[in-house]
Amino acid sequence: MAVTNRDMANAVRALSMDAVEAAKSGHVGLPLGMADAATVLFRKFLKYDPTDPKWADRDRFVLSAGHGSMLIYSLLHLTGYKSVSRDDIRNFRQIGSNTPGHPENFVTDGVETTTGPLGQGIATAVGMAIAERHLNARFGDELVDHKTYVIAGDGCLMEGVSQEAITLAGHLQLNRLIVLFDDNHVTIDGSTDLSDNTDQCARFEASGWVTRKVDGHDEKDVTAALKWAQTQKKPVFLAVKTIIGFGAPKLAGTGKAHGGPYGADEIAGIRESLKWPHAPFEVPAAIEDAWKKAGERSKEARADWKKRLAASPKKGEFNAAIAGRLPKNLGKALVKHKKAVVDGGQSKATRQWSGDALEVITGLVPEMIGGSADLTGSNNTLTSHTPSLTPDNWGGRYIHYGVREHGMAAAMNGMSLHGGIIPYSGTFLVFADYSRPAIRLGALMGARVIHVMTHDSIGLGEDGPTHQPVEHVASLRAMPNMHVFRPADGVETAECWELALENAEGPATLALTRQGLKPARTTHTEENLCAKGGYVLSDCKGKAQAVIIATGSEVEIALAAQEQLAKDGVKTRVVSMPCMELFEAQDAKYQSDTLGGDTPKVAVEAGVRFGWDRWIGRDGGFVGMDSFGASGPYKDLYKHFGITAEAVAEAVKARV
Amino acid sequence: MAVTNRDMANAVRALSMDAVEAAKSGHVGLPLGMADAATVLFRKFLKYDPTDPKWADRDRFVLSAGHGSMLIYSLLHLTGYKSVSRDDIRNFRQIGSNTPGHPENFVTDGVETTTGPLGQGIATAVGMAIAERHLNARFGDELVDHKTYVIAGDGCLMEGVSQEAITLAGHLQLNRLIVLFDDNHVTIDGSTDLSDNTDQCARFEASGWVTRKVDGHDEKDVTAALKWAQTQKKPVFLAVKTIIGFGAPKLAGTGKAHGGPYGADEIAGIRESLKWPHAPFEVPAAIEDAWKKAGERSKEARADWKKRLAASPKKGEFNAAIAGRLPKNLGKALVKHKKAVVDGGQSKATRQWSGDALEVITGLVPEMIGGSADLTGSNNTLTSHTPSLTPDNWGGRYIHYGVREHGMAAAMNGMSLHGGIIPYSGTFLVFADYSRPAIRLGALMGARVIHVMTHDSIGLGEDGPTHQPVEHVASLRAMPNMHVFRPADGVETAECWELALENAEGPATLALTRQGLKPARTTHTEENLCAKGGYVLSDCKGKAQAVIIATGSEVEIALAAQEQLAKDGVKTRVVSMPCMELFEAQDAKYQSDTLGGDTPKVAVEAGVRFGWDRWIGRDGGFVGMDSFGASGPYKDLYKHFGITAEAVAEAVKARV
Repeated sequence: MAVTNRDMANAVRALSMDAVEAAKSGHVGLPLGMADAATVLFRKFLKYDPTDPKWADRDRFVLSAGHGSMLIYSLLHLTGYKSVSRDDIRNFRQIGSNTPGHPENFVTDGVETTTGPLGQGIATAVGMAIAERHLNARFGDELVDHKTYVIAGDGCLMEGVSQEAITLAGHLQLNRLIVLFDDNHVTIDGSTDLSDNTDQCARFEASGWVTRKVDGHDEKDVTAALKWAQTQKKPVFLAVKTIIGFGAPKLAGTGKAHGGPYGADEIAGIRESLKWPHAPFEVPAAIEDAWKKAGERSKEARADWKKRLAASPKKGEFNAAIAGRLPKNLGKALVKHKKAVVDGGQSKATRQWSGDALEVITGLVPEMIGGSADLTGSNNTLTSHTPSLTPDNWGGRYIHYGVREHGMAAAMNGMSLHGGIIPYSGTFLVFADYSRPAIRLGALMGARVIHVMTHDSIGLGEDGPTHQPVEHVASLRAMPNMHVFRPADGVETAECWELALENAEGPATLALTRQGLKPARTTHTEENLCAKGGYVLSDCKGKAQAVIIATGSEVEIALAAQEQLAKDGVKTRVVSMPCMELFEAQDAKYQSDTLGGDTPKVAVEAGVRFGWDRWIGRDGGFVGMDSFGASGPYKDLYKHFGITAEAVAEAVKARV
Repeated sequence: MAVTNRDMANAVRALSMDAVEAAKSGHVGLPLGMADAATVLFRKFLKYDPTDPKWADRDRFVLSAGHGSMLIYSLLHLTGYKSVSRDDIRNFRQIGSNTPGHPENFVTDGVETTTGPLGQGIATAVGMAIAERHLNARFGDELVDHKTYVIAGDGCLMEGVSQEAITLAGHLQLNRLIVLFDDNHVTIDGSTDLSDNTDQCARFEASGWVTRKVDGHDEKDVTAALKWAQTQKKPVFLAVKTIIGFGAPKLAGTGKAHGGPYGADEIAGIRESLKWPHAPFEVPAAIEDAWKKAGERSKEARADWKKRLAASPKKGEFNAAIAGRLPKNLGKALVKHKKAVVDGGQSKATRQWSGDALEVITGLVPEMIGGSADLTGSNNTLTSHTPSLTPDNWGGRYIHYGVREHGMAAAMNGMSLHGGIIPYSGTFLVFADYSRPAIRLGALMGARVIHVMTHDSIGLGEDGPTHQPVEHVASLRAMPNMHVFRPADGVETAECWELALENAEGPATLALTRQGLKPARTTHTEENLCAKGGYVLSDCKGKAQAVIIATGSEVEIALAAQEQLAKDGVKTRVVSMPCMELFEAQDAKYQSDTLGGDTPKVAVEAGVRFGWDRWIGRDGGFVGMDSFGASGPYKDLYKHFGITAEAVAEAVKARV
């Protein structure tokens, strides 16, 4: 008897529900509902080879509704990925298994991105689709020619970030992006009627997508829709009508079908209604074979692709891009740039210095794609090497993201995960809050994305407290695996850019000033002094009576205080600490030597004290902000809030 | 000669451009573009009385595109608000003036909400419109019958939060909400074609709005549209076509018209093209008079309303609601509740204790409107006193916000600012990141909104690191004017709820567990021990050798460690610190007495150390997280990450 799409889908359903029952936790509503459509996708359309999960020209599949993780684990397992064994499925949601509660790309090969926080998957997929079209423009159809598929739920489409993603994708006409909307009309609280009445097809069409309604339990209809989707000139939205918890006698179609183990009775009922008499975690051999065959569909395509790559004159360049290797001459170029900065002796804002460093870097690293959330002139992220990436020129290297900080950060994650791109982009630091869920996911996934965040304190002046980050440097420092850099001048800015690029294991934030700053580093060094996170910038003769620690724009205040204090006979050392995380990573001796052991300390930073006691102690002095800012010229604000050399000097004197 | 709409609009234009030129900073593009339409609104439709900016039944006007703040300052000044004098306009964007860079409601009477971060205004306005309909249901047409008008720009509509706001408003059929979209087709980077091609009318219609296109420079067309808007059964979206920088010879219609002083030549050109020969900051008397009259339009309506209020049997109730006064019996009811909790001796999750406290509180405080971002059953925010607020029953007290954390937080700000409502709502703590821009605005504005954030650590278990907040308690503590509460049991949860409610000057976050906790407070006290932020929960006899500080779910670990250590002859004190901000606000003596002066300290909290050195010192012990979490049953995770009584005991022993 021939194995049908439904048989194969039922294998997905059965493994999914057995896993959730065993874990006593998880979400089986989506796998039960979307199994038929996903089976069509993995059997007939998706280009993938389970023996090579990192094959560069594979289609990307993103389960944006990440709570339905058992769908993807079942599919990976059945199609033959080694990353998900039957035991992993039995150990769903247990420590050490390859099947965590939500899909995590850094745990499970075959999972393209980490999802769960709703809307992130679809927004990340937009970045993957941009990366594909860009690399296609760079390397041609013979090396880059694939699609990005997304399964998104009602929750994903309710999240605001989905709107940013949809409108960006529609604008860029990313026709290789195909979204399957699990249109089951149910969220956790119950029917979507409780909270939403949006006509999703109309919404997507309003932003330049093509749409089609599909019966998600009809193999033929899904097949026809996906076939149609292959040839569209715009991104494709398929509203795939499904029944959540398909097959569950009592729960199907209800809010309760969303998650949680259904219990023995309901599971037995599903087995009956699906005509699936097999024991938990068992799949009949014929169905297993059919799935293995589905997993072998693209073997030949991959072999052909490998031949094309081997024969391509662009092979080396392509491999370097995909590996994310930085050019060898970058370090030297930055040393040369640093020397020119020192020799020039100019006062500039660090956002401008960042633009200058980027001019050097983007000239040497063709993988870098920049952009800004509608603040190009303010963020200084556009260089002469980065023409606009537009629907007419996907080969461009600069994205006008529009006022979409969140979608921008998520798209950057997608580009980085896709491979072949090192994304960076700009906004004001205060708007890091808008993109924080995506920034966090990037940190969790260890994605190399670089957030250029300018206007980094009350130093932005007149725009006032809505635009003045006070707690943002702290809140980003609190995030694991995030490097927050706050350089003090042109040399430090170049060094921090180098450190951000060299770390392929996680994101970086560059907090940069709007206002001009005097040079802090007046002697050229080949060594990257920022690499240790904090270092002695200016020492006194003999033992310092106090150590002043500063970052970014406050380094010049610290240096001025040091000078004032010296006149009064008080000897101090100034430590510049552009990256607290890198300083924390040094050994205790380096930390102690740099900070002068028990010497009294005063820190100055135009932000909150929160987190600083680590270095200055509870009795240390802190000159900074303890409230929101205010609107006014920045020099007035520094005085108003008492962030001055005089205040630093006083805080030192009170302690020596 | 009769004063025309254009004459009056030109006064707005002139004051706006003169102010920006004087400040050498600001955004005059919007005031120049929207002056005609805004003048129609303030002359013919908006219900307001400059002599009583807090009149409860006034229409609300929200400038969502807050950078165009000079529009609102000019309007307030010309219509006769005392809050904006001519000198304030001359001192635009200077410290101490009532005209900060972006509109700030806590600085300037007549400004309804603080805007600038794009999209926030429209999302906050949705909350105002909900509040109006709800209070109308409660108090009737004679006391509550007004509208909410919004001016939003392209940037507002690109931000994802706008989608959450739009879909929520469409769902709730908030027909008193009227949005004027400043459809000028320009953002900072240039034409919107650079980044967006959305058909905004189609987008709004897809979510249940009615829409109409309007010529923003044609008084008749604007008048007709606003007249039409008054009678709609759905929220109204007017796409008001304007020319940004209207009148500027070179800049009008370009990205450069958005902001920045235009310079003397261009300003002279505007004066010429507008036929406005008057000196800077001067307005002809006839035009001033016409504006003053416009400002007096609703005098009678207000007088009538005051009569109706005076005669209303609901007068006392209405005034108490608008003032946000808590009922006098609330304190006693909570003491009774605390006693019952102690007597019951139950182990429960603090999210459940929160639900129990809410059952008491919402029964006594009719102003409270609850809700959840589609996690009602998990957040325990629904009580027997809060029926659903729906399009058919605006009088309900529970909002199914859908998966819209950001829109929810912004709507809560709007309800709080409107007055008459004390909003609270729930989501998972990790998703505080989604709503952070609105949470921050609430803190900046001092709005009383209460964020119930459950599943507050790795203790949520299997959902894994995407759902496990690790840095969120820290990142919220870093925010000025935010109180973060992390109670340890049923008694502390009730006390923290009381503190959150009693603070009318700012928001609170309640971080609550998913998992069950043993009682920490086993003796009843009438006093609210959490009021000082931290207190001695369990002391030893004689002087403690170490102090263990804990919050929330880790208090039971601290108590277990204390017991273990006592067996080993080590005497310790356990301090519970449910609110670091309140503890920080105590005097040094209380802090030192509580923490035992120089006694070695160990803190235990299932989050990052960041911020804790303030209390434990650099040499203090910390048992918590230094990475993202993992997926697994929560008891396994606590062991895996070493957050155990044994680990705390070891950290203590290493220090005594």
